[in-house]
Amino acid sequence: MNIGIVGIGLIGGTYAKALRKYPYNIYGIDNNEETLAYAIKENIVDYAYTNPKSVLKELDVVFICLYPEDTIKFVRDNINHFKRGAIISDVVGVKRTIIDNLEVYFEDDVEFVFAHPIAGREKIGITYAQEEIFKDANFVITPTKKNTDEAINLISTLAKQMGFKNVSIITDTQHDEIISFTSQLTHVLALALVNSDDEKFDTSLFIGDSYKDLTRIAMINEKLWSELFIKNKDHLIRTINRFEKHLDEIKDAISKKDKDHLEELMVKATTRRGRIK
Amino acid sequence: MNIGIVGIGLIGGTYAKALRKYPYNIYGIDNNEETLAYAIKENIVDYAYTNPKSVLKELDVVFICLYPEDTIKFVRDNINHFKRGAIISDVVGVKRTIIDNLEVYFEDDVEFVFAHPIAGREKIGITYAQEEIFKDANFVITPTKKNTDEAINLISTLAKQMGFKNVSIITDTQHDEIISFTSQLTHVLALALVNSDDEKFDTSLFIGDSYKDLTRIAMINEKLWSELFIKNKDHLIRTINRFEKHLDEIKDAISKKDKDHLEELMVKATTRRGRIK
Repeated sequence: MNIGIVGIGLIGGTYAKALRKYPYNIYGIDNNEETLAYAIKENIVDYAYTNPKSVLKELDVVFICLYPEDTIKFVRDNINHFKRGAIISDVVGVKRTIIDNLEVYFEDDVEFVFAHPIAGREKIGITYAQEEIFKDANFVITPTKKNTDEAINLISTLAKQMGFKNVSIITDTQHDEIISFTSQLTHVLALALVNSDDEKFDTSLFIGDSYKDLTRIAMINEKLWSELFIKNKDHLIRTINRFEKHLDEIKDAISKKDKDHLEELMVKATTRRGRIK
Repeated sequence: MNIGIVGIGLIGGTYAKALRKYPYNIYGIDNNEETLAYAIKENIVDYAYTNPKSVLKELDVVFICLYPEDTIKFVRDNINHFKRGAIISDVVGVKRTIIDNLEVYFEDDVEFVFAHPIAGREKIGITYAQEEIFKDANFVITPTKKNTDEAINLISTLAKQMGFKNVSIITDTQHDEIISFTSQLTHVLALALVNSDDEKFDTSLFIGDSYKDLTRIAMINEKLWSELFIKNKDHLIRTINRFEKHLDEIKDAISKKDKDHLEELMVKATTRRGRIK
């Protein structure tokens, strides 16, 4: 099987590395020649191309590992160059908008299996790609009405081979709702936390692990995440509002010095968080 | 030098372990016999006592590693049993209230050096004590007008010996202000985040590292932290309000689909966080 990976950065590079130990031919496609040279030198891909047109016809599976807008553009520019029957997947962190934009191509002779590998690092580029990133992580597939079981099973199998622990199949709307909580809200909080530092003191002298843990993801790829936030605006705003309600409940208990209520909220959080491994 | 550690749980146990490689005699004082037996068996302390009265007279330095109210009670109950000239230190995470409560004893023949080791784990008890917890961590001393340079230097030296990287000397008010941001706010956010999960989905299938990192400290010791929050109410409420202002700024930019402003807020956070090691 010939597998193409478009955009071999942090995520695409990890797709390639994680699939390397299986008997697939891995084709890297990237517009950056240095990245391709690195991928070949490090034996991350078998073949490297800057021009997709010359190779797409060979590929049975194509993972497009680009930002949302670039993913849409790549499909639009190359829809006529894919192999007949090819399966195309993506890695975009919001699903409704990407599906809406690409459904015009659903009648073409390719099949889209939309997916979201919930994994990453606060780094950019192929040099940070490493299999460890996917280990025990979650993978989500959001099927459309055009999907076949075969294609979904294939992407699901490849995800498991890459090291993902759970592959969940839910609708695009469900995905965007839950991800606004588990991933987008966490990034919003980290940003607001760091930005709310009044810098009256040398913060680094007074932090413990908790501050470091909560703010690591404030080092964020602004081009990607501003796009993701805006494309999921409805769910994300609702989720932030829900969070604020719970934050205000804690604030209120502190204001009233209501130790019992504070303890109750803490026990609830401890119990819930304890269930997550 | 004879060093006593009162309360040999997670923090007290780590004090003991971290000071063990120096030529001090380490006395553990705890009301739990099992804890003491473990501390002796594991060679964490040289001597173990359930009754402080019988040993305090021997101790040059006493680290009281108890909760805020218990720290106050321990001093009140034992003020007449300390050695003449002994240096007493504490580990309480808020400083104004503890100093206010203990200043009545400042004229006695002991010296208090109030301190806060900014380190911990989401665990309780001596079995989790390990030197690693203090490695490269921050330590704060909040002097009172009664302190001598000698006593401050001694506690500072012991902190460095325990593995703390930075020892900062600031006022109790400054401490409580900065700690409301670096430590208390982070815990409040983790609690609100976990509690704002509407549990419509099986959250664990849709999380990445970010959710885990941001919520680990939601597993919290409710007796201790509810006390700390309430004792620092004024600063903490102000800090939460400041955070909410910045959270609302992000929410507003998302609502308006203002990508430029979002990117600007992200770049600001990335730059600031990048400065912290």
